Amino acid sequence: MISTDTKHFLCRIEDGIATVSLDRPERKNPLTFDSYAEMRDWFRDLHYDDDVKAVAFAPNGGNFSSGGDVHDIIGPLTKMSMKELLAFTRMTGDLVKAMVNCGKPIIAALDGVCVGAGAIIAMASDIRIATPETKTAFLFTRVGLAGCDMGACAILPRIIGQGRAAELLYTGRSMSAEEGAAWGFHNKVVAADELLAEAQSWATRIAAGPNFGHMMTKTMLAQEWSMSIEQAIEAEAQAQAICMQTADFERAYQAFVKKEKPLFQGD
Amino acid sequence: MISTDTKHFLCRIEDGIATVSLDRPERKNPLTFDSYAEMRDWFRDLHYDDDVKAVAFAPNGGNFSSGGDVHDIIGPLTKMSMKELLAFTRMTGDLVKAMVNCGKPIIAALDGVCVGAGAIIAMASDIRIATPETKTAFLFTRVGLAGCDMGACAILPRIIGQGRAAELLYTGRSMSAEEGAAWGFHNKVVAADELLAEAQSWATRIAAGPNFGHMMTKTMLAQEWSMSIEQAIEAEAQAQAICMQTADFERAYQAFVKKEKPLFQGD
Amino acid sequence: MISTDTKHFLCRIEDGIATVSLDRPERKNPLTFDSYAEMRDWFRDLHYDDDVKAVAFAPNGGNFSSGGDVHDIIGPLTKMSMKELLAFTRMTGDLVKAMVNCGKPIIAALDGVCVGAGAIIAMASDIRIATPETKTAFLFTRVGLAGCDMGACAILPRIIGQGRAAELLYTGRSMSAEEGAAWGFHNKVVAADELLAEAQSWATRIAAGPNFGHMMTKTMLAQEWSMSIEQAIEAEAQAQAICMQTADFERAYQAFVKKEKPLFQGD
Repeated sequence: MISTDTKHFLCRIEDGIATVSLDRPERKNPLTFDSYAEMRDWFRDLHYDDDVKAVAFAPNGGNFSSGGDVHDIIGPLTKMSMKELLAFTRMTGDLVKAMVNCGKPIIAALDGVCVGAGAIIAMASDIRIATPETKTAFLFTRVGLAGCDMGACAILPRIIGQGRAAELLYTGRSMSAEEGAAWGFHNKVVAADELLAEAQSWATRIAAGPNFGHMMTKTMLAQEWSMSIEQAIEAEAQAQAICMQTADFERAYQAFVKKEKPLFQGD
Repeated sequence: MISTDTKHFLCRIEDGIATVSLDRPERKNPLTFDSYAEMRDWFRDLHYDDDVKAVAFAPNGGNFSSGGDVHDIIGPLTKMSMKELLAFTRMTGDLVKAMVNCGKPIIAALDGVCVGAGAIIAMASDIRIATPETKTAFLFTRVGLAGCDMGACAILPRIIGQGRAAELLYTGRSMSAEEGAAWGFHNKVVAADELLAEAQSWATRIAAGPNFGHMMTKTMLAQEWSMSIEQAIEAEAQAQAICMQTADFERAYQAFVKKEKPLFQGD
Repeated sequence: MISTDTKHFLCRIEDGIATVSLDRPERKNPLTFDSYAEMRDWFRDLHYDDDVKAVAFAPNGGNFSSGGDVHDIIGPLTKMSMKELLAFTRMTGDLVKAMVNCGKPIIAALDGVCVGAGAIIAMASDIRIATPETKTAFLFTRVGLAGCDMGACAILPRIIGQGRAAELLYTGRSMSAEEGAAWGFHNKVVAADELLAEAQSWATRIAAGPNFGHMMTKTMLAQEWSMSIEQAIEAEAQAQAICMQTADFERAYQAFVKKEKPLFQGD
């Protein structure tokens, strides 16, 4: 079973749901070199784990994340060689790749500050629940960089459209919770005191399965990204044929015949 | 001229508009092996037909479609070999391919239950008119399968965005008519007693032409799906140059000079 | 420095912002063979210019553009050979390519009539501000052609979604300012007498930099269009590593440490 003994971020697993969050709430949960690397490794390991069915990525102390820490990350970056810089940007990108490829739906529970790499983690999740206080900003231009960070120029336009993504990436301005809901970034907005329960309720519903099917849905949502329509349809014919040989498909049919609710088991 | 003598779905052609719908309204118009195959073949034939200018895909008895029939389709699938399963999933995918490649705009008129393969047919249409009662659900996960069915993981995100598509595909929940309109799935929502007239009015307007142009628009909307921006612009330079040698382009110009409305003839 | 001595469209440069607009307001600023070619060349030159940081594409006399002129363009096109037609459609496509590749964010200020090639110029811009009176129509089907003009079948769906784009491209109908804002085409709608000031305020904010970063954001928003998610993330790791070696990144860090606002210089 995957480790919950993480040093640089919080992690607990209960009833098949892993709840993770960044730490150091007094600084709004910034990312550090260590937490990037450990989270990348953890999501890579998650790919091979059968006990976790869904992930809830939670806030901590009223904020989701302030992104890459100015002192711990940005300062050192200004002194690095190109080789070191590319190693860093690849590590951050590898966290997104690991989240996309982990095979388990990720429900992000967003609150307060959700900026920089924090906004990227939200973007790379499958479902996003927010509070009215959530401020999401892809603020890379504010620190002198480009909006193309960890896949943002590819992924954000597919979630909220090319025009709105361009605005957020050029200006670095905050997207309000209301905008996020109207634009399709947030799947739901709930009061802060209901946030974690709401996210875990989504995780619980998804973890009820069919988990092999969910894994395949997640795989194909990423895999078909740049396929032609014809290629995507053939890819889904193969993927769904595989799912039709799972026992969960048979379980659903038997339950239907008996007018019962199916109990999925993930195989 | 294309056949209207279809056995497993309803079809009539009037004034260049084919109105098709699934049958067995007492069971909310489920799909069967036979209706899948016959519709696939019919849309393939439509590619070569010059008399039909647009298709209205209509509901029947207050519902659009309940999708693949549990008894006629899902039961048998649970007993099939992989070879047979892949033949089935490819047949269903071929229906979407045939709709996308038929060269005629398809206006789906949605009402009541619009789920599973029924939701896919709606998704694969060009224009979607709904009623307030329309409930659209990509409910494949409810039967133990993945959301990647007949192109859904590729096509649905391009219509409503990646985040909303993920929600519908993981949870299998119904999208209300109001959500569908706000998210860009439905082009218009009208009262049930106005639905068919509305859809046929769209079909009539589109069938007035220029039909060669419409065929090219439909071709390129699919063809450019996974091209780079530069490739897409070159592809459109070629496609539009072809259209500029049609008589309909000349007709439009002459009509404009005479301050008349152009009468397009499709060549 | 790039020329402002343009013959077939209006152009002035002030404080690093180029304000351009089409001319002949008495005819709602149609495009001609000459203005297409000159604008294509001007945006190509802009790629190599370091003094212009952002472009405001302004209306003229209450309208943005009526598109390709019926008498000056459409009439002659009806008499051309295929070789000549392709040279024309490639020239128009080259204008979009030049706008996409110019390296500077383009803010379109839309008002009144914004149709045909005018709607395409709006679509090919990065940010779109409109007035309540703006009517945007991709009306190519009205002149007997296809909706696939200058990249519309590829770009418009990524801004407003595949279903709404299909509707506009098949019917050629006007999109109202309200629809444009709800659908993500317009980033903001303001009163006509505030339009130019609003667009220039956006241009000024963007021109404040970091301009190397903005150039890279613009490059990657286009470059990643048809990449896989994995390719896009690697491409951004490289692009952002390059940006981390700019002096503007260091300037932002130093300003943060001193609790000042960074003054970007574009290198």
